[in-house]
Amino acid sequence: MSNAFDFSAVTNPKLQPPAVPWGGFPKFNFVGGHNDADSVPVQEFRQCLDRIMTERGRTLATYFLESGPQGDLALREFLVKKLAHYADIKCQASDILLTSGSSQAMDLINTALVREGDVVVVEESNYGGALSRFNRLGVEMVTVPLDAEGMQTDKLATAVEQLAQQGRKPKFIYTIPTVHNPTGTIMSLSRREHLLAIAREYDLAIYEDECYADLVWAEKRPPSLYALDNDGRVVHIGTFSKTVAPALRVGYILADWSLLGQLLAVKTDAGSGALEQMLLAEYCEDNFIPHVSALNKTLKEKLDCLTDAVDREFGSSAHYDKPPGGIFLWLKLPAQVDTSKLALAAAEEGVAINPGAEWSHNMADSQNWLRLCFANPDKATIEQGVAKLAQVCHREFGVPVTGSNQLR
Amino acid sequence: MSNAFDFSAVTNPKLQPPAVPWGGFPKFNFVGGHNDADSVPVQEFRQCLDRIMTERGRTLATYFLESGPQGDLALREFLVKKLAHYADIKCQASDILLTSGSSQAMDLINTALVREGDVVVVEESNYGGALSRFNRLGVEMVTVPLDAEGMQTDKLATAVEQLAQQGRKPKFIYTIPTVHNPTGTIMSLSRREHLLAIAREYDLAIYEDECYADLVWAEKRPPSLYALDNDGRVVHIGTFSKTVAPALRVGYILADWSLLGQLLAVKTDAGSGALEQMLLAEYCEDNFIPHVSALNKTLKEKLDCLTDAVDREFGSSAHYDKPPGGIFLWLKLPAQVDTSKLALAAAEEGVAINPGAEWSHNMADSQNWLRLCFANPDKATIEQGVAKLAQVCHREFGVPVTGSNQLR
Repeated sequence: MSNAFDFSAVTNPKLQPPAVPWGGFPKFNFVGGHNDADSVPVQEFRQCLDRIMTERGRTLATYFLESGPQGDLALREFLVKKLAHYADIKCQASDILLTSGSSQAMDLINTALVREGDVVVVEESNYGGALSRFNRLGVEMVTVPLDAEGMQTDKLATAVEQLAQQGRKPKFIYTIPTVHNPTGTIMSLSRREHLLAIAREYDLAIYEDECYADLVWAEKRPPSLYALDNDGRVVHIGTFSKTVAPALRVGYILADWSLLGQLLAVKTDAGSGALEQMLLAEYCEDNFIPHVSALNKTLKEKLDCLTDAVDREFGSSAHYDKPPGGIFLWLKLPAQVDTSKLALAAAEEGVAINPGAEWSHNMADSQNWLRLCFANPDKATIEQGVAKLAQVCHREFGVPVTGSNQLR
Repeated sequence: MSNAFDFSAVTNPKLQPPAVPWGGFPKFNFVGGHNDADSVPVQEFRQCLDRIMTERGRTLATYFLESGPQGDLALREFLVKKLAHYADIKCQASDILLTSGSSQAMDLINTALVREGDVVVVEESNYGGALSRFNRLGVEMVTVPLDAEGMQTDKLATAVEQLAQQGRKPKFIYTIPTVHNPTGTIMSLSRREHLLAIAREYDLAIYEDECYADLVWAEKRPPSLYALDNDGRVVHIGTFSKTVAPALRVGYILADWSLLGQLLAVKTDAGSGALEQMLLAEYCEDNFIPHVSALNKTLKEKLDCLTDAVDREFGSSAHYDKPPGGIFLWLKLPAQVDTSKLALAAAEEGVAINPGAEWSHNMADSQNWLRLCFANPDKATIEQGVAKLAQVCHREFGVPVTGSNQLR
């Protein structure tokens, strides 16, 4: 094709930069939220798919199966039980909108609630995909720092009061209270109650992102903000990507109908994938709780493997708080290490990492931090990858002082 | 829940009106693009799912399986063959982006190419979902009428020249050349060549929507515009919703990388459903062509059933050109029949129809037209539904002069 016509001359301004063709997964893949391949319940999926196809296969002939645009009713009914079990949430199937992953959930909520010039409150370190979405929409982010108990709600109170004094009201407080991304913290109950009190005082909506919230090593976790709220101001999102399989694109939004009806109207995709919803409904009913329990054991072992490797290879150069759940480690290196540059150099050696600047609204504060996802690589790959990362870091920045290549 | 917080007070302006809770399918369902339930290949799907789960189930642990964000490589490779077979298209897997149905394809293309104040050229009668998208975005539509050969390209030339004289250039010409929605027409080869010549002369992009294009009763159809183009100005979309199953949300976009890379960047959903793509790849390789051939026989029989019923119940009050393919009949009633009002009255009796006003940019011209989808209801339901529609129409508008209820 001569390509005489160039579409890039007619695309809209302010879009994301065009993608480049995909080059395959890196050998040492510490990015992207992928999960443990051995934990995909392939045999159970085979049996479930056979049953649902026999019992409900014909319903694929209609958009939305026979459940309407909110998504498969059987899966929404399972979610009612799951949300009660893990997050102390009382809700009904009619409060839930199934989405194509929590990524679509985020896009729908942003479409409905924010536009250029709006202000939102967010945690300082944050999910890169949340930050990039707000940036793209021209939304101003006011940040609140975190500590081991999650968002520092006294600083939230100050931030919201300062905005109020300027006559400004944030559209919502966006928070990842349970297994925060990237810090891994779980917000304490008292902080949750304080956050809700602030939201009530200033009449603000709360946007609670519980993507990773079922991946907690401990038996109990605090109730979700949605569960603690009593006046419908919390919109809650979650996903099956982290607990069952990321390639199954099934997430959900839980909200009062005053928001859910609007989200449903802006969801113009004629429904999310029905087969994946049917499979999850059939599988999760009997298997979700034991599956997640086993997955958490596997993930904790991989985290132990990762922190052992980091301790061994980076020694006192690396600082971290070991997370109580999730699939990533948030790691601080000495000040002279620019992790954005480290990520480029490591990529040359097949090691993919998330530099801190992409996972924080205040880039300067996190330029020596990085995020390492540990769920997908096997233990040997984790060990080799961290060793290689330490070598590259030593070569580029002189830390760790004794690169692992010299120890062997 | 006391619902003290009202999200509708903080939603953006200019959104779609909020949805109301779904009330179930109507008994006589002539809307919505649903398909024939008996034609869902349930047994083959069971076998295919068992094979893909055994062979590729573990890859569900990674976003995008092992194919990257353009979607499952096996399905894109099948599409290369399918597009050659049906539409004379020569392309490669790397030219294709898999989407969550063609609905998402439309949203991605609009996001990348149009914004408020832009002008686009569209066929006068048109897919309601295309019109509503352009209206919502504040895009001005310049319309071109159709006849039995599809878009009247001499009138297209006039419209584009008039815009040029005003110093305006449309972002693209949007067309459904093969089994047009709602008229069912197939654009002739000479019109296709004329359309491309006009696009070249005025340096315009063409946006070709081939959602229904494989549902053609005849053996041959004209080559797609993408196939006839030689300089990369056509973006082509299609879907498996109409040929295999609507609840499987798999569509595709075929375009030069100067557009495809941008579409990929604005696709922020972390991938479309992988299981549905894997299933289609496994199923379609050996079964798509015979399946579509059998489906077309079934659809043609249902169309015959529908036109027989319309002739019987409406007599000379109804006018239509019997379509050469697809799943809908575009029907004209006498001028006094306002089909928007008819749709409301019919809905009360369980009969759902698309009024012409929703399927045309010039509402006044089509207020006595309606669209009847015939793929989903069985033949007895088609017959009863048309009889009931004629009764309601007679009661409300006095036509058909002898309502079917009086004939029996």
